Amino acid sequence: MIVVGGGLIGSAIAWRLAGAGRTVRMVVGEPGAAASRVAAGMLAPVTEISFTEQALLPLNLASLGRYETFAAEVAEASGLPTGLSRTPTISVAYDADDLARLTTLKEFLDRIGLKAERLVSRDARRLEPLLSPQVRGGLLVDADWSIDNRLLWAAIGAAGRRAGVAEVDGFVHHVRRSGTQVSGVTLADGTELDAAVVVVACGAWAGQLTGIDPLPVRPVKGQILRLDPRGLPQPSQTVRAITQGSEVYVVPRAGGREVVVGATVEEKGFDRGVTADGVYELLRDARRVLPMTAEYALAETTVGWRPGSPDNAPILGPGELDGLVLATGHYRNGVLLTPVTADAISAYVLTGELPEEARAFTLERFATSHPTPPSPPSPASSPPSSPTASPPTSSPPAPETVQL
Amino acid sequence: MIVVGGGLIGSAIAWRLAGAGRTVRMVVGEPGAAASRVAAGMLAPVTEISFTEQALLPLNLASLGRYETFAAEVAEASGLPTGLSRTPTISVAYDADDLARLTTLKEFLDRIGLKAERLVSRDARRLEPLLSPQVRGGLLVDADWSIDNRLLWAAIGAAGRRAGVAEVDGFVHHVRRSGTQVSGVTLADGTELDAAVVVVACGAWAGQLTGIDPLPVRPVKGQILRLDPRGLPQPSQTVRAITQGSEVYVVPRAGGREVVVGATVEEKGFDRGVTADGVYELLRDARRVLPMTAEYALAETTVGWRPGSPDNAPILGPGELDGLVLATGHYRNGVLLTPVTADAISAYVLTGELPEEARAFTLERFATSHPTPPSPPSPASSPPSSPTASPPTSSPPAPETVQL
Repeated sequence: MIVVGGGLIGSAIAWRLAGAGRTVRMVVGEPGAAASRVAAGMLAPVTEISFTEQALLPLNLASLGRYETFAAEVAEASGLPTGLSRTPTISVAYDADDLARLTTLKEFLDRIGLKAERLVSRDARRLEPLLSPQVRGGLLVDADWSIDNRLLWAAIGAAGRRAGVAEVDGFVHHVRRSGTQVSGVTLADGTELDAAVVVVACGAWAGQLTGIDPLPVRPVKGQILRLDPRGLPQPSQTVRAITQGSEVYVVPRAGGREVVVGATVEEKGFDRGVTADGVYELLRDARRVLPMTAEYALAETTVGWRPGSPDNAPILGPGELDGLVLATGHYRNGVLLTPVTADAISAYVLTGELPEEARAFTLERFATSHPTPPSPPSPASSPPSSPTASPPTSSPPAPETVQL
Repeated sequence: MIVVGGGLIGSAIAWRLAGAGRTVRMVVGEPGAAASRVAAGMLAPVTEISFTEQALLPLNLASLGRYETFAAEVAEASGLPTGLSRTPTISVAYDADDLARLTTLKEFLDRIGLKAERLVSRDARRLEPLLSPQVRGGLLVDADWSIDNRLLWAAIGAAGRRAGVAEVDGFVHHVRRSGTQVSGVTLADGTELDAAVVVVACGAWAGQLTGIDPLPVRPVKGQILRLDPRGLPQPSQTVRAITQGSEVYVVPRAGGREVVVGATVEEKGFDRGVTADGVYELLRDARRVLPMTAEYALAETTVGWRPGSPDNAPILGPGELDGLVLATGHYRNGVLLTPVTADAISAYVLTGELPEEARAFTLERFATSHPTPPSPPSPASSPPSSPTASPPTSSPPAPETVQL
C-alpha cells in the first residue's frame, strides 16, 4: 500500500500500518513545505473551538485524550523525544472589547461543558509574569496543551522506518485506477507506483490530485514566526490573546529553544510570500501582550498551508474508488488530530470498518445530493457575532469495506 | 601590497592600485557580513548630515561630486551595471513634532548652504503618490541619490580582477611588523602574508586587529530589511521619514527588484541577532509613511555593522607603522565615501602624500596628546536638540610618506 504524504498524519498512519504487518511505501512530498513543520503544535480543543465547529469537538477531545499514550508510544518506538507539554494554556484579552469577546467565549464553553477558569488581570499575571499590565483578564484552560511538532514529526518518522515504512522521495500528482478500484499513483516526475490501497494524506495538496473527482480541500495560507529568546525569560505556557480584535498565540518550548508566534489566516491559494504586513501584525500582537517578545531574535519566518475543507473538519475514510482512503482536510487541527486519525484510518484499512468517532467525517457529507449544503468556511479565529449559528450538518455514512 | 578587507572601500582601493601597476593582494574577509552588502546604498550628504558632523560635509560632497564619473568608470572597466540613481530624495515628517524637527533641519541646511526645497503635504504627495495622507510635509533634496550597493560592489570586484587584483580568502587578525615598518599580516587560520604596504579597509573589524595599537573603530549594529514589491507599485525615489520621533528610510531599486527599509542604530558590539523589535519598528515606520509597503513580501532581514569612529568620520591615511595605511571608520557613509576614499588612499600609497581633502581625517586627530578629547559618538540619526553643539575638533596632520 501507498501513503501519499509524509507529514504527521501520513507518517503516523504509515507507522501504524507497518506495525500491523503491512508493506507500506510513503511518498513524502516536500517536507520543507509541510504544515507539520510550519505549525506551532498547539493541542487546543478548547481555545481553538469556534461556534461553527462544534461538530468537530468530540473528535478533537478524543484525540487529545489519546495524546499522552500516543506520544509515549512514539517515544518508545523511536527512542526520540516528542516535546509534549501538558502545561495549561492561558487565553487573555487586551482591551475592553477583547474582554467582551473572551466573556462570550467563556459563556459558550460553559454551555457546551468545556472547562475554563476565569482570571482577573492580577491572577493572569501571577500565572504568567511576562504578561503586559495592560491585559484585562483571561481564561485558564487546563485541557489545552502543546507539543513540539517538529520533534514529534521526526520521532514518528523514525518509528515508521524502524517498523519498515519505505520512504519514497517525490510528489504524487495523480491517482491511477483500474475500473472502480485504485491501482496506484503517478509522481510529478512520471514515476508510476502500483498499489491496491492508497491513503491520501497530503494535506493542502489533496485538492490538486488528478484521476479522481477533485477533493474539497484548499490551501489556507498561514504566516508564522519563530523567535529565539537567546537566554531571556520566556513564557511558561502557551499564551493566546485577542488584542484589539486581532488574535495571536505564543507557544514556548521547553528549554527555551524557541517561542512560536502565529498565525495569519489567508485565502491566497499557495502564495508563498512572507509579507511585511503578516510579520508586522504578529510581532505587534505578541509584544502587546508579552512585551518581552520584542527583545527576542526573529529566527524564522515561515509560510504554510492548512488543508481547509468546506466545514473546517477533516475528511476521513473511503474515497471514490475501492482502496482509496482519505485522511486530509484537517485545517487548523492537524497536529491535535494525528493520534485519532492514525487510529481511525489504520483500523479502516485493516478491518474495512471506520471507527464510530470518525464516521461523521467521511467525504460523503459533501455529496451534492446532500439535503443541506455544507456551511461556508469560517476561520476558527473569528467566531461570528451570533452564537446561535448552526453547526454544519453531517450524517454518519454507512461503513464501507476497503478491498485490499 | 595587501589590502585588508574586500568590501566597497577595499575593493575600490585595490582596483585603483592594480590599475596603477601595483601588485595587489586583497584579503576579502567574510563577504556575507560586509557592510557593503548590508547597506541600503543611499548617497546622502544632505539628509544624512547631523549637527555634530559638519566637519565631514566637504568630504561627503566631494565624494558625491565624483560619483557619476566613478560609477561610469566602474561600469566601463567591469562591463557590469552599478545601479546609480540620480533621482532626488524626499524627506518627510509624519506628525507635528516630526515636522518641527524637519523645520529645524531645514534651517540648519540653509545656514550651511545646503539646498533643500520645502514641500507642503500636497506637493510631497504629488511627487510621491504612495505617501500616506498623514504626512505633514517634507523636503525635496536634489543632491541625495542612491546606488545599488550590491551591484556596485560586484562591479568593482570584477573591475579589480580584470586589473589584476588577487583575491585571498580569509580574515586578517594580526598586523606583522619589522621594527617600525609593517611586514605583512596573519590570517585567522595562521597563514602569514608578507607585504611592505598594508591597507586596512576591513570596516567594523579594524578595531580588532592585533599587532598595532587598537584602532578607535567599533561596530555599530544595524538591522535592515529588503522587501520584494512583487509587482505592486513602489516609491519612485528614496523616501526618508521621521515618524513619531523615529527615523526610517525606504530606498527603491530601478526595475522593482527590491525596496530597502532601514535601519536600526545599536551599540551592541558584533551581536548578530535580527530582533523582533528591530524588524517591528522598521515595518511600522515604513507603513506609516508608505502604507503600500505593508503589502510587499519580506524578502530579507539582515544585520550589519557600521565601522564607527569617535567622531563618526573616517580614518584615512597613515597608521602607526611605516607602510601601514588606514581606510576605515566610515560609519554611515561608506558607500558615499567610496570614490573619494579610493582616490585619496591610492594617491597616498602612490605618492606618499595624502590629498588635501582627506587630511583632516587621519588617525592623529585621536592622539591622546590632542588638546581636546574626541567627542562621544552620536548617531547621525538623532541630531541633538541644540544646534549649537560644537563640531568635533580636528587638525590636519602633516603629510607623511609611505615607504614602499
